[in-house]
Amino acid sequence: MEPTFDMPLDEAMMTQRAIRRLKTDPVDDALVLRIIELALRAPTGSNAQNWEFIVVKDPAVKAKLAKMNRSAWNIYGGIGRRIAERQGDDTMKRILKAVQWQADHLEETPVIVVACLRTVIPWFPPIAAASAYGSIFPSVQNLLLAARAAGLGAALITLPLWSKMRAQRALGLPFSISPCAVIPLGWPKGKYGPTTRRPVGDVVSLDRYKNRAYQSAAG
Amino acid sequence: MEPTFDMPLDEAMMTQRAIRRLKTDPVDDALVLRIIELALRAPTGSNAQNWEFIVVKDPAVKAKLAKMNRSAWNIYGGIGRRIAERQGDDTMKRILKAVQWQADHLEETPVIVVACLRTVIPWFPPIAAASAYGSIFPSVQNLLLAARAAGLGAALITLPLWSKMRAQRALGLPFSISPCAVIPLGWPKGKYGPTTRRPVGDVVSLDRYKNRAYQSAAG
Repeated sequence: MEPTFDMPLDEAMMTQRAIRRLKTDPVDDALVLRIIELALRAPTGSNAQNWEFIVVKDPAVKAKLAKMNRSAWNIYGGIGRRIAERQGDDTMKRILKAVQWQADHLEETPVIVVACLRTVIPWFPPIAAASAYGSIFPSVQNLLLAARAAGLGAALITLPLWSKMRAQRALGLPFSISPCAVIPLGWPKGKYGPTTRRPVGDVVSLDRYKNRAYQSAAG
Repeated sequence: MEPTFDMPLDEAMMTQRAIRRLKTDPVDDALVLRIIELALRAPTGSNAQNWEFIVVKDPAVKAKLAKMNRSAWNIYGGIGRRIAERQGDDTMKRILKAVQWQADHLEETPVIVVACLRTVIPWFPPIAAASAYGSIFPSVQNLLLAARAAGLGAALITLPLWSKMRAQRALGLPFSISPCAVIPLGWPKGKYGPTTRRPVGDVVSLDRYKNRAYQSAAG
């Protein structure tokens, strides 16, 4: 069965979730390119379209990304696990287990996409950083939704990029191109399905923060 | 006709564009809330779901956002216009005209949504900023796609936030909540339609930057 992208938008959004346990079966280049083509439809600041996507299939490059991910995960994951244990948070424990699986198997991922911006992202003022990241994460979200519609497992991670310099070296990127997000792609072992969220009325304010005008209406 | 969100995903993505010229007709609260509900389905780092959305309908608050937008646009837009004139770039001139219209009419927008993060976004290391913005711009993209499916005009702007402090004051936000993106919503005067992009092979590298392995295949 040929993967398609004509799933109803709301169904794609309602059933999108991070799929971390992936099969090692190959993924067609044409499928990956079509997904990136849809990613390119997202908006960019000043319509600059200043993105770069690295499609990683070379085992040596995948191994470098996997190693950087593990270094960061060994520190960060330990903290997360201790917090989840202390709070007895079962959802978080399940997520942490999946992230651990991903860390253990990242080099076996068929395709790893790295989304980059053709710019050095300024630290100041905050709006400059917001505009820069606002020109790449919308396209990353298109990529994740397109993967979901095609039935391809995907997740958004940033841990492999904890050292921008090392990530740039691994991918042959010059200083002026900033890697922003890593998306491992592969056929899922698990399933897409509904996610849980707080009621919309709890995160929306009318006109001024904390004016929770929609709390009852939205349930 | 009731707006729906079941447009095929690829059609929504292929025809999404910034719609800046908006009618002043009101937009139903229920529609705005449903769009934000779909925005909440996007992923967040560590599944923190640490977003806040301010739905601005109060003319006084809209006027403040419009004023901040104009201050920034008067500087930034002038630069853009001079570059577009010098390069004879007609697409850019059309965009700048639409942005100018938006700057002149922002206070007349029926609804302005401000997407925020419940965190102070760190400047360093870069990965921390990437993770933070990577937890809000995917939801902003869901919001834009949902608006497109419903036939509602929308655009992603950041200029009204050039001064984080002033934006926080206008919206009653404490220092610890960071406004990240502004999305004016209204029924469009113009039309959604196909956008132009470079061929995917020109922005994709295989394994290492500049290995344009898909240039002929995709071009």
